[in-house]
Amino acid sequence: MGDWQALAAAHRAKQNESIPAEWRLDKNLLAEISGEGTDDAGRLVRSQAVKKSRLLTEKELEITDNFTATQLLDKIARRELTSLEVATAFCKRAALAQQLTSCLTEIFFDEGIEHAKWLDKYLQEEGHVVGRLHGLPISLKDSFIVKGQHATVGYVEALRRPLLDDTSTLVDMLLDAGAIIYCKTNVPQTMMTADSENNLFGRTLNPHNTKLTAGGSTGGEGALLAFKGSPLGVGTDIAGSIRIPSLCCGIYGFKPTAERVPFSGNTRGPFPRLRIPGGVIPAAGPMGNSVEDLELFMRVITDMRPWKYDATVHDVPWRRQETAGGKVLTIGVLPEDETYRLQPPVRRALDSAVEALARAGHKIVHLPRDDSRSVALGAVLGFYCFGLGGPPLDNLEEEFKEPLIPSVKRGVHPFGSASFSIPQDLDFPQLLDRITGARSEYSDSWKRTWITHDLDVIIGPGAQHTAVPHDTYGNPVYTLVWNVLDYPAGIIPYEEVRKEHDPHHVKATAPFDPHYDPEELHGAPCALQIVTPRFRDEECLSAMRIIDEVLHRKQ
Amino acid sequence: MGDWQALAAAHRAKQNESIPAEWRLDKNLLAEISGEGTDDAGRLVRSQAVKKSRLLTEKELEITDNFTATQLLDKIARRELTSLEVATAFCKRAALAQQLTSCLTEIFFDEGIEHAKWLDKYLQEEGHVVGRLHGLPISLKDSFIVKGQHATVGYVEALRRPLLDDTSTLVDMLLDAGAIIYCKTNVPQTMMTADSENNLFGRTLNPHNTKLTAGGSTGGEGALLAFKGSPLGVGTDIAGSIRIPSLCCGIYGFKPTAERVPFSGNTRGPFPRLRIPGGVIPAAGPMGNSVEDLELFMRVITDMRPWKYDATVHDVPWRRQETAGGKVLTIGVLPEDETYRLQPPVRRALDSAVEALARAGHKIVHLPRDDSRSVALGAVLGFYCFGLGGPPLDNLEEEFKEPLIPSVKRGVHPFGSASFSIPQDLDFPQLLDRITGARSEYSDSWKRTWITHDLDVIIGPGAQHTAVPHDTYGNPVYTLVWNVLDYPAGIIPYEEVRKEHDPHHVKATAPFDPHYDPEELHGAPCALQIVTPRFRDEECLSAMRIIDEVLHRKQ
Repeated sequence: MGDWQALAAAHRAKQNESIPAEWRLDKNLLAEISGEGTDDAGRLVRSQAVKKSRLLTEKELEITDNFTATQLLDKIARRELTSLEVATAFCKRAALAQQLTSCLTEIFFDEGIEHAKWLDKYLQEEGHVVGRLHGLPISLKDSFIVKGQHATVGYVEALRRPLLDDTSTLVDMLLDAGAIIYCKTNVPQTMMTADSENNLFGRTLNPHNTKLTAGGSTGGEGALLAFKGSPLGVGTDIAGSIRIPSLCCGIYGFKPTAERVPFSGNTRGPFPRLRIPGGVIPAAGPMGNSVEDLELFMRVITDMRPWKYDATVHDVPWRRQETAGGKVLTIGVLPEDETYRLQPPVRRALDSAVEALARAGHKIVHLPRDDSRSVALGAVLGFYCFGLGGPPLDNLEEEFKEPLIPSVKRGVHPFGSASFSIPQDLDFPQLLDRITGARSEYSDSWKRTWITHDLDVIIGPGAQHTAVPHDTYGNPVYTLVWNVLDYPAGIIPYEEVRKEHDPHHVKATAPFDPHYDPEELHGAPCALQIVTPRFRDEECLSAMRIIDEVLHRKQ
Repeated sequence: MGDWQALAAAHRAKQNESIPAEWRLDKNLLAEISGEGTDDAGRLVRSQAVKKSRLLTEKELEITDNFTATQLLDKIARRELTSLEVATAFCKRAALAQQLTSCLTEIFFDEGIEHAKWLDKYLQEEGHVVGRLHGLPISLKDSFIVKGQHATVGYVEALRRPLLDDTSTLVDMLLDAGAIIYCKTNVPQTMMTADSENNLFGRTLNPHNTKLTAGGSTGGEGALLAFKGSPLGVGTDIAGSIRIPSLCCGIYGFKPTAERVPFSGNTRGPFPRLRIPGGVIPAAGPMGNSVEDLELFMRVITDMRPWKYDATVHDVPWRRQETAGGKVLTIGVLPEDETYRLQPPVRRALDSAVEALARAGHKIVHLPRDDSRSVALGAVLGFYCFGLGGPPLDNLEEEFKEPLIPSVKRGVHPFGSASFSIPQDLDFPQLLDRITGARSEYSDSWKRTWITHDLDVIIGPGAQHTAVPHDTYGNPVYTLVWNVLDYPAGIIPYEEVRKEHDPHHVKATAPFDPHYDPEELHGAPCALQIVTPRFRDEECLSAMRIIDEVLHRKQ
């Protein structure tokens, strides 16, 4: 495996140096902030660290704590805040988040701040903004390629290769819209687990409780946004990679219909796979601290006609939704899958939300169980689709030239009890045909459900559980199923695990299911998942806003 | 091959009997009408047959000759015409078209007329129409499945199988909208040639000149509509199957972006192939006698939210276009491909159209040749995609249990001079990967062209030639290329071959290219193809209307 350790250490040292010295906390202060040695170690990072660090000024605290991205843009455009002030505040807070949760990969605050100065000058001299994201710092998952920056997605091996010349399409668009790109965020080795850990950047911790996973694969983004080290982030999602960190970290996340937001130009790391159509398609999408900001991202990007940047994008304009005032939704409640049971706090949060929505006058439809559209079946189809890219490699370690992280080593769920299986002896075209047919039947069954009940939206869990201890995240079936259907799906944080409400330990009975331990999980955020049919992204976000207002009484 | 002949003959006899006896012309009158034995044999069918037959009343002539589908709907809704009158007129004219051009397959005028009576009664009793197509007769390519009717697509073998139970999704939608389905139309054996001939229903003739092909694969529809035996028809198109008969028969046709109009439930005949994603996707779309009617079809179907009927449809609403008044288009002119030269009348029609459009104030951009987005390259990619469904069968005759028609026997173009080729030794996943990558580069190159020149629309030929003598149609590269890109593309008839304008015989030099013979082709319609990017169907039809108005001075 050569000298990967030395290479990784050197890159980490460089990473550390890219944080200005005056923003680096000394060891003792760090230990104190993270509650090292106390009973509450792990739970203190998000709630107390920022103030205790004394790194941010009052104004910087206000900027990072009190405004949505939409509000910040408005203040910058009206010159109540400068881009420089905003960028500096978020860079500082991101520096702190990095020191406490290892959420970042490439750090280029200096470039972000220079760009902010240029934007301020432009606004002053020209009297108008560069674009609709003028002056807004935006953080990106490491797989997005930014000019002059590595995009290793955590593989040490990638450091040996020359920097990539191209940029991701979405990065071009964000820069054209006036956004400030200032850091990239951590991911799991392979980007296919829910633990954002790799041999290069280490493990991202959950700022609500550092003993829990931040989720993955866009886990760095989840931790950074929950820590308010960024006003708006971008992830990608092929099985839940936007939604899993969102639900783990208590933030908002949105996986659009695939190919509405440009994905092209992203790296999958130094080990590319074949392009096999007919599989599950990854989607890029926003993560943030409000529905409003997710909508902002989708509207701005779609209004720029992303097809102009990326021919693979669906050239479909954003449809303005009528303002939500008074709209009554017909909300289908996803039934709990018998194979994938929910942990008590997840079930409780869902029930509580449904009750609140009914009380607010929305029509609730408890969808019956139906094997032809079960979460279990969808998940099996998803895993067959992933298999189309080729069989799992025999010896990942050898290929990667570095050790496997625990969540990769754990391997793949057996899916033994599945109601669908494909004979081993089919050739590839027959296999594709079979999977295509089964997915089409699955889509059809879901469509029938939608029409039968005249649904506007579905509400359900985002996972069987909340954030769980590192390397124990279950199978992401409740997120994956919507990728298989290519339905837009968003996460709304709602309530949290309270050991006094759900005091009984629940032992997992199925393989890969984590236990429910009330002590361990106390305080972890709960969440809801909101879903609409393919291409109904506008309706999904509009419903998310209505539901969020009911649940968080913002009306 | 068994007794396929007897089976076919019996079905044809049944077909003939489904035309009411009083609508069947006697042999002598038929011979006279078709000009048998005269110098002009073949050219007389469309121009003189209807009047000479004396089959239609004055009112029926008026109904079938003078109104668009849109106008007929309006008259029915306002009770100026009954559905029964309209249906009867088109059934009669379709009966005549069938006797002169063999354009039909299944004939069920009786059911259509019964449905018309019911619709009239409904309107009278309820005071409102059933739907937006109330009372309009619509003809369908044979591959659409209508309850109680065969869908053999010309295979005798299919007659031995039970009737299919399902209906095509689109048929359900049309019936829900109040349309009258009264006949289906002829196709080529395999549906993959431009000569609509098969052993069951014979060969469809071009009503402009029965010595020429009506095109294919929706050739029966082309002949029927050109003969005005239907006010609106529906075809499907994977390489030009809507546009080729449209340009051969001098009618209007529109291939939408795939999966905007439901395709599901159609038959591909009794010899199904594998479903391989990543290939070229067929699109269903309208054929008619005006742009207005193509738009009518697209608007009505899309407004019904076809996803409700068919989960594979893109759930994207129709976007109303601002009324065209005074809009100046930027029109890119497709360069003539060096491998696929245009016959003189095709070139002349295109030049004349471009001149007229420039004169009308539109901006013309003569696109430079570019190998990365040439028609020749697109065609090669298309044929590789078709190959994904499996290698050509070794012995089609044996599989079909009946002889091959000449245009199938002719085989497949060698594509020898292509600028793209794939090594023979790739396995299937590698092959898919390679084709996917090449298609993506091709799309990207076209997108760049579009953006660079800020195009609204592209104008080009629909083929190298017009309708040609039977079994000599060239490679459909000028249509196929837009299927490879999944760009919407429509045909506008414009001018015709005049031997006095292009008097010189041109000998074909490339394999599969037909000769240009001015005597033979005199009077054949010419046509233009109008194209916009994927999902810009609304813009394509809007531009077609503007261009059509300029060319036919309807302003």
